[in-house]
Amino acid sequence: MAKDKKLVEAITSMDVDFAQWYTDVVKKAELIDYSSVKGCMVIKPDGYAIWENIQKELDKRFKETGVQNVYMPMFIPESLLQKEKDHVEGFAPEVAWVTHGGLEPLQERMCVRPTSETLFCDFYARDIHSYRDLPKLYNQWCSVVRWEKTTRPFLRSREFLWQEGHTAHATAEEAEERTIQMLNLYADFCEQVLAMPVIRGRKTDKEKFAGAEATYTIEALMHDGKALQSGTSHNFGDGFAKAFNIQFSDKDNKLKYVHQTSWGMTTRLIGAIIMVHGDNNGLVLPPAIAPVQVVIVPVQQQKAGVLDKAYELKNQLSGFRVKVDDTDKSPGWKFSESEMRGIPVRVEIGPRDIENGQAVLVRRDTHEKTTVALAELDVKVDELLKDIQRNLLEKARSHRDAHTYTAVTMEEFAKTIEEKPGFVKAMWCGCQECEDKIKELTGATSRCMPFAQEQLSDKCVCCGKPATKMVYWGKAY
Amino acid sequence: MAKDKKLVEAITSMDVDFAQWYTDVVKKAELIDYSSVKGCMVIKPDGYAIWENIQKELDKRFKETGVQNVYMPMFIPESLLQKEKDHVEGFAPEVAWVTHGGLEPLQERMCVRPTSETLFCDFYARDIHSYRDLPKLYNQWCSVVRWEKTTRPFLRSREFLWQEGHTAHATAEEAEERTIQMLNLYADFCEQVLAMPVIRGRKTDKEKFAGAEATYTIEALMHDGKALQSGTSHNFGDGFAKAFNIQFSDKDNKLKYVHQTSWGMTTRLIGAIIMVHGDNNGLVLPPAIAPVQVVIVPVQQQKAGVLDKAYELKNQLSGFRVKVDDTDKSPGWKFSESEMRGIPVRVEIGPRDIENGQAVLVRRDTHEKTTVALAELDVKVDELLKDIQRNLLEKARSHRDAHTYTAVTMEEFAKTIEEKPGFVKAMWCGCQECEDKIKELTGATSRCMPFAQEQLSDKCVCCGKPATKMVYWGKAY
Repeated sequence: MAKDKKLVEAITSMDVDFAQWYTDVVKKAELIDYSSVKGCMVIKPDGYAIWENIQKELDKRFKETGVQNVYMPMFIPESLLQKEKDHVEGFAPEVAWVTHGGLEPLQERMCVRPTSETLFCDFYARDIHSYRDLPKLYNQWCSVVRWEKTTRPFLRSREFLWQEGHTAHATAEEAEERTIQMLNLYADFCEQVLAMPVIRGRKTDKEKFAGAEATYTIEALMHDGKALQSGTSHNFGDGFAKAFNIQFSDKDNKLKYVHQTSWGMTTRLIGAIIMVHGDNNGLVLPPAIAPVQVVIVPVQQQKAGVLDKAYELKNQLSGFRVKVDDTDKSPGWKFSESEMRGIPVRVEIGPRDIENGQAVLVRRDTHEKTTVALAELDVKVDELLKDIQRNLLEKARSHRDAHTYTAVTMEEFAKTIEEKPGFVKAMWCGCQECEDKIKELTGATSRCMPFAQEQLSDKCVCCGKPATKMVYWGKAY
Repeated sequence: MAKDKKLVEAITSMDVDFAQWYTDVVKKAELIDYSSVKGCMVIKPDGYAIWENIQKELDKRFKETGVQNVYMPMFIPESLLQKEKDHVEGFAPEVAWVTHGGLEPLQERMCVRPTSETLFCDFYARDIHSYRDLPKLYNQWCSVVRWEKTTRPFLRSREFLWQEGHTAHATAEEAEERTIQMLNLYADFCEQVLAMPVIRGRKTDKEKFAGAEATYTIEALMHDGKALQSGTSHNFGDGFAKAFNIQFSDKDNKLKYVHQTSWGMTTRLIGAIIMVHGDNNGLVLPPAIAPVQVVIVPVQQQKAGVLDKAYELKNQLSGFRVKVDDTDKSPGWKFSESEMRGIPVRVEIGPRDIENGQAVLVRRDTHEKTTVALAELDVKVDELLKDIQRNLLEKARSHRDAHTYTAVTMEEFAKTIEEKPGFVKAMWCGCQECEDKIKELTGATSRCMPFAQEQLSDKCVCCGKPATKMVYWGKAY
C-alpha cells in the first residue's frame, strides 16, 4: 500500500502552497516536462491530447462562423514589425531575433512572430482589392514566442501554442460585430466545454492590446482567487489598415480602408482547467475535454475472465473515450493514478462483480461510488459524464460567485483584496491615474469593464469623482 | 465570354514550360501567395485545407498504430545540436540562428529546429528509465526551417509544415520493424488517399539522413518525368542513444541503449499532388483529399427557383463536401474556376434541367459530361467520386510505368535520361564513386534501392564490376 500512495503523497496540498500544488500537478499528471531551452516546455501526450480536444472543438466553432484556416510565415522582418507604432512598442522588447541564416548574417534581422498582425496586414494589402474580397475571415494555429523573464508551464512560457484569428471588413460596424461574436464564442466554449464560467467585458485603455482600438476579454477566477485572462478579441478599427495601406474599392467606387479584428486563445487554457477544477488528488478534467473519459480498472486481473470482461466493457462503452488499465501495477496504484490524471469516471471490475453482473463506478469530481448492473453500464456512464460536466461548471460558478466582492471605498477595497482573494467589483471614474493608484495600493489590476454593468455607487472608488463604469478588479496570472 | 476565359488563358501550358505551369497553378488555384519573408510562403485557405485533410488522414493512421502526439520547443541550443556529429554536419549550414531575446544577447545562440531529433533525444534521456517506459511512439505536427538558397512553393521553402515521428525501442529489431511499418503507412496513404503510386525502397549511404543507420524512402514520378522524394523513414540504431546517453534498465536488470527511428512527411505532398494529377486547365484533386468535392453551379441563377434548387441539391449531397457557387460571376467563369481549383465533380443545374428533373455532372479528370436524374444524384456523385479516385491512381501508375526505363550500359543510361525523362532502373556495384560518376555524367541521382529487386544484369552499369543492387535513378526535385 505504501507504494500505491506514493503518487499522491508527492503532491503539495493546494491550501498549503497553491503555486507548488500547480507545479506538482502539471508534472505528476504528466502534462509537461521542462526542456533544455529555458522557459520552453515539452508538452507530453496527456497535455497535448487536451490541446487537441480544445483545437478540435474551437476549430469546428470557428468554421461554423465562416472562418478559414491559413498559415503565415513564422518570421517577421524588422521593418514590417515597425510599421504600426503602438504595436512595435508593445512587442519589440520581448521578441527573439534571428540574425543569421546558415553561415551568413541576414541583411535584415527578423523576429520570430510574437503575434501575426503585421504578417496578415502585409498579406491583406496585396490580396484585398475590392469589396468583393471582403470580409476576410482567416485564422491560424501555430506557436508564438515572447521572451518572458519569468515563466510558468502553460501560464507564461517563452513559446506557446495558440490560434490567432485575423479578419478584415468593409465597415466599422461589421468589425465590431465580429469582435463581439468571437468573444462570445470564446465565452460559450469556456462554459460549455471547459466547464469554466467567465466574465465578459472590455479592457481599459491601459490594459488593451498594442495597436487595438478596443480589446474585449473573458476573465476566469482560479481556485486560489486569482484572475486569469482566458481569451481576448480586439477591434483594430482602421489603424493597421492605414499603417499598411490596406484599401479596397467599395460598391460606390471609392477607395476605403478596411476595418480589422484579431482574437486568440492559447495553451494557457490548460493552466486554467487545472486551476479551476483540480483538487488535492490532482487533475480533474471536464468530460468534454478529457482525452480519456473512462478508465476501466480490472481488480484481481490475474484471475480468469477478469481482463476479458474489462475489454468487453470497453467495447460496450465504444461511444466514449475509454482506456483499460491492464498494466501490472496494483489496483490501488491505478486508482490513485487515474485520479491524478483527472479521468472523469473510473469503472472497477473484479471477479465478484462479474459474478454479480455489476461494476463499481467512481466519479472523479465527488469521489462518489455507485454499483451498477453491467447491462446498464453505457447508459449510466453517459449520465454520469453529463452530470460531472454540469457539476464542474456549477461548482466553479459557485466558487467564483462566493469569491466576488464589492467595494465602495478604498479602505474596503484594500481590506478585501488583502483578506479575501477574488474579484472585487468597484466603480471607476475612467482615468488612468486611479487605475494606477489602485494597483499601487492593492496589487490588483483592472480585469475588465463587464458587459453586465451594475450601479454600485455613483462615485469612483478611488478619487470620489463621478463614476463612469463598474470594473472587475483582481490579482491576476 | 472573353472574361470567362481569362482565368484559364493565364496558365502556361505544361508542355511549353512545366516549371512555369506549376507556378501558375499554385498561384491561380489560390493555394499560396508569396510573402515579404524571402523563401517563405503564405498558405492560403484552399492550400491549407488540403493540408488539413492530409493531416487528418495521416494522424488517424498514426494513432491506429499507437502513436501519440506531443510538442517540443522550436529552438535548439547550439550545444544540443552539436551532440551527434553527422547530424550537426548535415544541418548546421542551413539553420536560422536566434542570437537575441528581447534587447539582450543570448548567452548561447539557438537555432530554429530544422528537425527535432536532438530535442527528442534530450527529452528521452530524462524520460526513459526502464523497459516499462518503452516503446515511446511520439509524433509532432509543426513547422521547421531550413535556410535554402533557391526555393519553390511547397517543394523547397525556408519554412515548411510537416509531421515528425520519433520513436524509441528496446531492441534493434523493433526499431527496424517500426521504420518499415511507417514507410509502408506512408506508401499506402499516398496510393489510397493521394492516388499517387510510389516506389518503396532504401536510400544509398550517400543519400541517407544525417545521423541515420538506414533511410527508407518512397519516390513518386511527377508528370514531367522528375522524381519527388515523398516521405522518409529512418532507423538510427543506437547512434543517437549513445550520443545523448539514452539508457534503460532491461528485464534482465542490465543497462542498455535504446534504438530509435524517425519519419516525416511535409507540405511538399501538396506539390506532388499538383505535379502528378494537374493538367492544362489547372489543379486536379483526388476526391479523398479535395476540400470541396462537388461544386454546384446554378445556370441562369437569376430565374426563380434555380438557386433554391441548387441549395436543395447541396442538402441532398450532405454526405460530401459541397459548395454552391452563388457568386454573381457568369456560369462560364465558374466552370473555368472550378476546373482551375481542381474540384473533382461539377453539377450544373438550370431552369430546363429542373423542368426535366435532371442535372449535368462533369468530372474534372476526363471532362466527361453525363446527365442524371435528380433523384439519383447522390448515388451517381458517390460512384463518380470513387471512379475519379480510382482513375487518377491508374492514370498516374500508367504514366509512371510508361516513363520507367532500364539501362545496362552507361551509354543507354545517358541517352535515356537525355531523351526520355523518367526513372531509369540500372544495376549498381554499391560504391559511391559510381554513384558520383553517374550523377556527373547524367545529372541523375540514386532515388532508392527498391524493396522489389530485379536482376537486370549482373554488372554495375557504371564500372562493370559485380552488381549488388538494382537502383532507381532519376533527376529529382
